[in-house]
Order: sequence, then structure tokens, then C-alpha cells
Amino acid sequence: MSERFCSVVLPELTLHSGKVLRDVRVACSINGTPEPDGSNVVVVCHALTGSHHVAGGPVSDLPDAWWDPVVRPGGILDTDRLCVVCCNNLCSPYGSSAPTDIEPGTRRPWGMRFPLVDPRDIATSQKMALEALGIRRVAGVIGGSLGGMIALEWVSRFAHLLDFGVIIATPLRLYPQAIAFNGVQRHAITSDPEWKEGEYCPGRGPISGLYNARMLAMITYRSEESFVRRHMRSARDNIDEWEGRFDVERYLMHHGELLTKRFDANCYLYLTRMMDLHDLGRDYGDAEAAFEGMRKKHFLAVGINSDILFPPWQVQEVADAARDAGAHSSYREIRSDIGHDAFLMEFDQVSGILGDFFASTGFAR
Amino acid sequence: MSERFCSVVLPELTLHSGKVLRDVRVACSINGTPEPDGSNVVVVCHALTGSHHVAGGPVSDLPDAWWDPVVRPGGILDTDRLCVVCCNNLCSPYGSSAPTDIEPGTRRPWGMRFPLVDPRDIATSQKMALEALGIRRVAGVIGGSLGGMIALEWVSRFAHLLDFGVIIATPLRLYPQAIAFNGVQRHAITSDPEWKEGEYCPGRGPISGLYNARMLAMITYRSEESFVRRHMRSARDNIDEWEGRFDVERYLMHHGELLTKRFDANCYLYLTRMMDLHDLGRDYGDAEAAFEGMRKKHFLAVGINSDILFPPWQVQEVADAARDAGAHSSYREIRSDIGHDAFLMEFDQVSGILGDFFASTGFAR
Repeated sequence: MSERFCSVVLPELTLHSGKVLRDVRVACSINGTPEPDGSNVVVVCHALTGSHHVAGGPVSDLPDAWWDPVVRPGGILDTDRLCVVCCNNLCSPYGSSAPTDIEPGTRRPWGMRFPLVDPRDIATSQKMALEALGIRRVAGVIGGSLGGMIALEWVSRFAHLLDFGVIIATPLRLYPQAIAFNGVQRHAITSDPEWKEGEYCPGRGPISGLYNARMLAMITYRSEESFVRRHMRSARDNIDEWEGRFDVERYLMHHGELLTKRFDANCYLYLTRMMDLHDLGRDYGDAEAAFEGMRKKHFLAVGINSDILFPPWQVQEVADAARDAGAHSSYREIRSDIGHDAFLMEFDQVSGILGDFFASTGFAR
Repeated sequence: MSERFCSVVLPELTLHSGKVLRDVRVACSINGTPEPDGSNVVVVCHALTGSHHVAGGPVSDLPDAWWDPVVRPGGILDTDRLCVVCCNNLCSPYGSSAPTDIEPGTRRPWGMRFPLVDPRDIATSQKMALEALGIRRVAGVIGGSLGGMIALEWVSRFAHLLDFGVIIATPLRLYPQAIAFNGVQRHAITSDPEWKEGEYCPGRGPISGLYNARMLAMITYRSEESFVRRHMRSARDNIDEWEGRFDVERYLMHHGELLTKRFDANCYLYLTRMMDLHDLGRDYGDAEAAFEGMRKKHFLAVGINSDILFPPWQVQEVADAARDAGAHSSYREIRSDIGHDAFLMEFDQVSGILGDFFASTGFAR
């Protein structure tokens, strides 16, 4: 059965900050059919600029499916037997409640009056959305990058509702270099005069700021090795003239342009800030305590050897904290020169690693 | 004797690109007294936003001296015995010819009509400036970062005029990740509406673009370890509010602001592009050939273990190329968590490494 979409409205969501959002919309995708006891349901959490469109062909107004080779009939998340649910993150422009929505009682978008949302809030919104869909228990949760931060909040808050958790290219907390990269990206947006404190007209706004932010982000999603392999110092232009650009610059510009055509700048501000707020142990005193509910449950942390955004040692730390808390925890590594985005490209390795993990847990046999 | 400043005007400078610049001004500093045969003269080359003010106290309109503990009476570059000459790089706003100058025959600054200049051109301009000062031979040349790229061009073109070369935190060529970081920084400047294709009024212009570029650059000049040590996730602000900033963001903003008060945006464009053009072997077929004149001469490449901009392997490559060409070449490493800027801060290690090198070459005994 191909991917189905639905939208759930939560009457009320109390955020970690104490603020309350009402009539919260959560857009979801469902691949496969859930068992009544939820035993075949896997929650998959998407990354910063992704969407809930996980598998299958193009869908209008959504970016391309990001894990199609992984989530499909016969795939490692075999939708003939499993049910994969993915919810669009709040603050994302792809259907869930976001700063682009009209603020209730006004005729204008929320903009920067939308409350800050953290990964914990996203996990809560997803759990509530699943309940509304009749799914009260799941087999496990899987996420990469920001999706992994959300998966960690599932594991920390809702361990009683699941058997396993998997995170890919995700740290225990955002370390300062990643906060710094996000901060520079946000500054590029907010210093664009078209930003207007977030009060730009929908579809317009700080295009060049967002473009610049994405250029920078792409450096952190790749690695020097991949740039050397793909571009090195090659230039189709004449680099002895000012107008000339090296191919690697053109590559970043291409990605900058693509994102401005499909994303919203205020959403980008909220989502990068959400990422900064990721700090699994923040409410517990330490990260190990956050894994308390995972005792004797299964946990896998997958690093990427060439990841400069969330380097392997940061992912290893997550596996260690889970193990120290008594989980059956392991660490695996995707070997690739791609960098951070390898989890969106090295599908064979992702499938192999998930397959080994499922074999060890007895899931999906 | 304290630092003296002078300015040389070269009637004509033919650039590597074939373009000719006339009446080229080169601002210089001199610390110490040159021997008539130049045997005690060391040329020191400054980095991207530095100046020829190497040693001593504050000088109006110039940034703080960048190597004062190294270049001083009794220092490892002992100005009681040696003579250290530093020339302000062309395209820098500190006195040498630059895009901020009035274009001859017009009443407006060159702006983006100034020709592109590469590290080779800088080395040539320095050699000509020294000749004008009566210095036709030198003991050696030392430079860090962009200054090291210029030092490499000295070594490649003017080996017959010197006995040794030292580069610190400098690659053989700019690799694509560094080009990418520079490209994003330039984009931040050129997409600022105040840039106006470079035709802004002097002292105004794309302040927020330059500020953003510097924020990003500072990440590449530091390391994750140093950010963890200094800032980790600390925040004097309330980070649960949008206006809140992590301390690491405030640190970058502080550096962004400082640079906008002392630097020019067009100069920044030219100097980062100059760095991109660094490719020692470009005219020779390979880098080893560029070191041909250094056969039996002394060469030292100094890497920094935590440098993410020009990581140690890139600096090691320079030492290898020089050794393959028959130079007495060695590689040393500054051990520091600071990152790229360690050569501007770890003075004891810099002095120790230079001292060992001088002992092995017999210089400055």
C-alpha cells in the first residue's frame, strides 16, 4: 500500500517552556498498516528541512521522499509487514503548525510571535498525533540528525511505549560549534532587510539570507573528502576574473537556490533554534538518567565517520549513556566520505546496520 | 629600536593575471636595523585581516600588533640583532594599494574594478618594496595562514634571494572546503543590499554582510574543543526566549562587530579571493617543482593539531613537497586546542619551534 497522508489537530499542546499552543496541526504519513497493538509500528522522525514524505514518488508541495530505499515493500522497513509513521515537525512549512500559519484572532502569520519549540515538544506532539490515529504503542522510533534528537526525546519520555530506539548522526546535546554554525545561519537571515523582524509577506521575505544560510549548512552536511572527490579546485569559470566561481561555490549556490524555492525563512529560524535547544539531560541532571526507561530495551546509535557537524565521538556518547543506563546499547558507523548527509544517501549501509540491529532485537523477523 | 613605518611606491606591477597596476603603494614596517648584505633580515608576512604592524604598542588606524612576543628585543626574532620587515598586503585597507583607493583618472574608489591579486603578486610587491628600501637579499621569510601562502610564493619565486622559509598553518593550495567557507562569506557581503556592487560610500557599505562573514570565519579560526572549554552550552540569556543567545553566539557577534569597525568589505572580498587563488604548483605542473630553488636550503612547515581550516595533513603536504624537491625540510606541530588562530596566540610554542629551527639552520646564532 502506498504512502497515505493525514492531518491531526491536537486541541492543546503544553510546550516545555510552559507556553500553550492550541489547535495544533500535525501532518503525518503512514506507510503500511498498523497492527492493533502497535507491535509493527515504527515512528520515523525527519530532519531539519525534510518532511513527513518518507517514501514513494513526488508529492506536490513536499520535498522528495528522503528514505524511499529504506521504507518500502521488501525494504529493511518492509511496509508489507511494518507500518512506518512519520509526522511533520512543528515549525516546518510542510503542513504542521508553524510560524507561517495565521495567528488565531489576527489575519497575519504568527511570524516570530510563534512560541519556541524544542525537540521534546516535537516528540510529545508526535505521540499525541499517534494516539489520535489510534496508535497507543509502537515497536520503536528511528531518526537522523534533528530527527534523531526527536527520537531521543521519545526514548527519554516515552520509553514505556516502545521497545527500541535508533538514532543516526545525532549528539546527546548540541555542542557549541554546531550552535555557532546555526547562529551564523540565523544571522544571515535576520540581517537580511527583507526579513523585517519576521513580518515579511508569505512567499517573499529574506530569500538571500536563507540562500546564504543553506550554502553554509551544506558545507557542514558534506566533508572535505567529498568536496575533494567531486570538485577539488575545478572551475568551469575563469577564476582569474572576479565573476568566476569555483565549482564548489556553484554547488553551494545551487543548494542555496533550491532551498529558497521550497522553504520558509522563519521556519528555518525556529528549526535551527529547536536544534540548539537539544540537550537530552537538561531536565534530568545528566544524560544517563534520560535513558532510565530504556533499561533492558534496545538502543542503537549510528555515527558517520566523515560527519563534521555531529562527529562520531558525539554519537558514541549517546550509545555510552544508554548503555550506562542499562539499555542493550550499541554503536555502529556508516563508512562514507559524504559527511553528515550520508544517512540520506548511503541506503545500503543504513539498511545493513538496521538489519543487524533488528536481528539482534528479534524485531521484524 | 621601536617599529618604524614607511611607504614605498612601485611605478608598475605586472600581476600574475597579466594586468598592470601603476603607482602601487606598499606600506611597510621595520623592526631592527638591516645589515647591508641583508643577512639579518627576516620578511614576515601577515594574514587576512592583519596588518604590517607586527610588534609594539597601539598605532592609530592599525589593528593591534599580532606577533609582539615573537618580534622584540630578546625575542626569538630578536630585533636587537635581526631586522624584521613586514609589508601590508595589497588589497588590505591598512595602507597599501587597495580597492578603497581612488581609481586614477576618476574621483571614486576602485571598488570591484580593482584587478584580482593573488599571493604571487603580493610576494612580488614585497620583494620590489624591499629593493626600494635597499634590501636586495634576506635571510628568510616567515608567514602564517594567508601570510604563509605569500611566504610560499617567496620561496617558489625568490629562493635565490633567501636561505630559509617558514610557513605556519598554510596548505599547498586552497582545498575546496576552505574555498567553500570563503565563498559563503563573500556571498554574505555581496548579497547585502548595501554592497551595491562594491560602489558603496567609504566607511559605510555592507556592514551586516561583513559582520556575518567574520562570524563564520571565527568558527573556522577556532575549534570545537576551544568552544567547549570556553563556552560549552552556557548562556547568560534566557535561551527559551527567541531573543536569547548562547554565549558562543555572542562571542561570534562580538568578533563580527569588531571587524566591521576596522575593515573594509571590498578588501575582504579581494583578500578571501586571493586566498582561494593560492595554488603553489599552478604554474609548475606540481608543487614539488615550485620548491626547486630551495634545494639544500632550509624549510619548515608548522601545523596546528586543532586547525579545522588548514588541518595538519595539508601543512604536512607542504613539508613533504619541499623535502621531495631536495630542501632540508621539516614539519612541526603546535599543540593547542585553539584551532587555526593558535599561531597568533601560542607565542611560547611558536618561539620554541622557531628557535629549534634556527638552531638547526645556524641562523641567528
